[in-house]
Amino acid sequence: MLNYSGRLDSVYAALSDGSRRAMVERLSRGPASVKELAEPLTMSLPAVLQHLRVLEESGLVRSQKVGRVRTCRLEPAVLQQAEQWIADRRTRWADRLDRLDEFLDETEGEEQ
Amino acid sequence: MLNYSGRLDSVYAALSDGSRRAMVERLSRGPASVKELAEPLTMSLPAVLQHLRVLEESGLVRSQKVGRVRTCRLEPAVLQQAEQWIADRRTRWADRLDRLDEFLDETEGEEQ
Repeated sequence: MLNYSGRLDSVYAALSDGSRRAMVERLSRGPASVKELAEPLTMSLPAVLQHLRVLEESGLVRSQKVGRVRTCRLEPAVLQQAEQWIADRRTRWADRLDRLDEFLDETEGEEQ
Repeated sequence: MLNYSGRLDSVYAALSDGSRRAMVERLSRGPASVKELAEPLTMSLPAVLQHLRVLEESGLVRSQKVGRVRTCRLEPAVLQQAEQWIADRRTRWADRLDRLDEFLDETEGEEQ
């Protein structure tokens, strides 16, 4: 089990590659087999499986094998964690700017 | 100049390290000198500067040297790009689930 910080490390690392983002993009439209994931990518099946492993280790994707077909699904809660961390920092930054604006407006008012 | 995909590669790679996230966290509360950024981190100054370089190359942070002090600032537009890419995929996934729910509700209605 990864702790929160370790999870974020591995999720952002997983998202730092265009091919893996293409796989996440595909899975956002619904579950897919490994073959379907591989189709649009110009790489060998072992390379696709390696990318899939990185996505699974990060928790972003889960897969299940039924018969001969492995089906992959997105794990939206993990995607949300990664989104939330960034959103919280961006919001804090924007709030600070708003407060700074208010402060400057008030100071200007005092000067008049 | 990085293109959109190259930018996302380097922004997510920059965010995949806890020390760099701590620096982004600090900068979300306002600009800081390199010394202030380094203070809470238990690492050498060269290590801090190396992390800062990764953050600057990704576009997440900009710094400016005035006299002997280098001041670092967060670049919120870049943070927003990274947030938006994830949000768009998560939203698409959730919309698909909603449509699936509606479809199942309708199908159930027809069966009654």
